[in-house]
Amino acid sequence: MDDLKSYIREVPDFPKPGIRFYDITTLLAHPLALRMTVDRFTWIFAHLQVDKVVGIESRGFMFAPILAYNLNAGFVPVRKPGKLPAATVERTYDLEYGQDRIQMHADGVLAGERVLIVDDLVATGGTARATAELIAEQGAEVAGFGFVVELSALGGRERLAGWEVESLIRY
Amino acid sequence: MDDLKSYIREVPDFPKPGIRFYDITTLLAHPLALRMTVDRFTWIFAHLQVDKVVGIESRGFMFAPILAYNLNAGFVPVRKPGKLPAATVERTYDLEYGQDRIQMHADGVLAGERVLIVDDLVATGGTARATAELIAEQGAEVAGFGFVVELSALGGRERLAGWEVESLIRY
Repeated sequence: MDDLKSYIREVPDFPKPGIRFYDITTLLAHPLALRMTVDRFTWIFAHLQVDKVVGIESRGFMFAPILAYNLNAGFVPVRKPGKLPAATVERTYDLEYGQDRIQMHADGVLAGERVLIVDDLVATGGTARATAELIAEQGAEVAGFGFVVELSALGGRERLAGWEVESLIRY
Repeated sequence: MDDLKSYIREVPDFPKPGIRFYDITTLLAHPLALRMTVDRFTWIFAHLQVDKVVGIESRGFMFAPILAYNLNAGFVPVRKPGKLPAATVERTYDLEYGQDRIQMHADGVLAGERVLIVDDLVATGGTARATAELIAEQGAEVAGFGFVVELSALGGRERLAGWEVESLIRY
């Protein structure tokens, strides 16, 4: 079975009725599927020559640090408010209903650095775009996005137009 | 500077007054400190021949998957209740005041597997011990614990007596 998609578990009605959840823990639990996922990303992104890999809470944390390690970059977390201990910068962004807010340490990315943004899944791309804008506000350069799973019908790629967007598994 | 401790940021009064927080994000953001942390763990734990590396939410997620990758093992998350999409097993454990609860996917670790448990920091060892007990209940074998930071005065190592416990930075 050489298809990474076969290692994703589809869970109906999570986190609420009518939502189909794409569970990446079954991929992570399989040593060779984990290795192939990370190695494909490493191969795809090596040319970007990034200084930092930013991971989005909390499933992005399961992939971004390995990529940072493989690419000889640093890892920086983007988190929900109140989780990071030192001085932060933040950005508020619109959801379908209401707003959400993300924070990053103020010294997480530095002016002039090249940054790769990683998350497990892209749907509408709202959080990913807010993360990119927050990074750009610090004077750093967003070099690209890596997602394990892309839900193509939800327009994430369009919302991130102008940046390099790579995904390994598409629905 | 060859001391990993120098890459830890000490933040006073977080998350509440009187608590000193040991921030591992400054270590993760530094490419060589991240590499040395992971490589030391890989070197220390290679002999355990583990099948799975379990990471504890959420800062454990920043280290456990890289170790799984380097050790040719799978990664399994242990999370707070309600976060995992498929069938779970769980364990309730006592805190100084009150109780807490952790969950793992029911198929996260299998009977007979050898498991390494990883978190960013060990203090009293309560969550780490509950994780080990949950894993043992599944018929798997806890092969050891890896912590980036150990707060030696708080008794975590004693609470995990009988298991191999390794930490890279001690206070």
